[in-house]
Amino acid sequence: MIEAARGLIRERGLNATAISDVLERSGAPKGSVYFHFPGGKSQLAVEAAALHAHEQVRMIDELAAESSSAPDLISRYVDAGRDGMLASGYSRGCGLAPLVTEGAHDSEEIAETSARGFAEMVDRVTFHFVAFGIDRASARSLADAMIAGVEGALITARALHSTSPWDSIKASLLAYARATR
Amino acid sequence: MIEAARGLIRERGLNATAISDVLERSGAPKGSVYFHFPGGKSQLAVEAAALHAHEQVRMIDELAAESSSAPDLISRYVDAGRDGMLASGYSRGCGLAPLVTEGAHDSEEIAETSARGFAEMVDRVTFHFVAFGIDRASARSLADAMIAGVEGALITARALHSTSPWDSIKASLLAYARATR
Repeated sequence: MIEAARGLIRERGLNATAISDVLERSGAPKGSVYFHFPGGKSQLAVEAAALHAHEQVRMIDELAAESSSAPDLISRYVDAGRDGMLASGYSRGCGLAPLVTEGAHDSEEIAETSARGFAEMVDRVTFHFVAFGIDRASARSLADAMIAGVEGALITARALHSTSPWDSIKASLLAYARATR
Repeated sequence: MIEAARGLIRERGLNATAISDVLERSGAPKGSVYFHFPGGKSQLAVEAAALHAHEQVRMIDELAAESSSAPDLISRYVDAGRDGMLASGYSRGCGLAPLVTEGAHDSEEIAETSARGFAEMVDRVTFHFVAFGIDRASARSLADAMIAGVEGALITARALHSTSPWDSIKASLLAYARATR
């Protein structure tokens, strides 16, 4: 159910994801919702976003293990975002962004979940950039730019049905990585 | 009413913006909605997003008129985004992004409105970068990166309640501008 909620939030946002849609997609029995998620939809959204951030961190670790430098990791992460978007036919965005644009204004818990998710991703990228030999302050700024850049491409490339924002963000981040080396 | 709808969409997204909220914020009489907006909420959202894109293009023109180079325009546009976010206490994001994350999946008109808005912004920035002496292909890529980068900072800086994504995106774009000069 958490996986189904995550997919629906990425496709249509937070408010348009009804519990009934989550049940339909996951095939879970109706009675199970308030047993597993006593907090209802809001709890499900929080757990779906936490899962999304966790998967992103896991992917960052995997890509870092295959990379030999910060530019290498940047290229692989941006390309993974672009490929995922193409595979979905431009129908799927970030699993955290809808919590920021729709949920943060009236739920402290939802606001905190998205903040924690992005912070975890930036921290992990920073960690890998430092391991590749970049000083900590530059590594953090490059990581901040990478996560924000990918987040932006998830919006504009999806809107434009074009891969060019992905390519442009990658070129921009690679120029920044070279300048901070 | 269009201005009120735009503000609400930037604060809470598309689906959470009810016609009744728009009426309350704008002070417009209830009977006027379907007179001015026979297409109802969806028409209001489309017009609010078009207004947002129009205002962004106007701001890009104003900032370009004060700038002497592409890096100058980049700095001013990113700083304007950061300052606007600080002025709203991290409560306001982009007026187009919610159409992409919430509306594109079930309304062709809403999908087209956000695509047109981003395309107009990228085109205008490209135009100014070319006027500052950058070749057209590089200008377009730099403009694509600028609009996507700002879009990303509008999500992650808002989530993190931090200006650091703005600073990092600016540094990344300036490195890219220097590399393409």
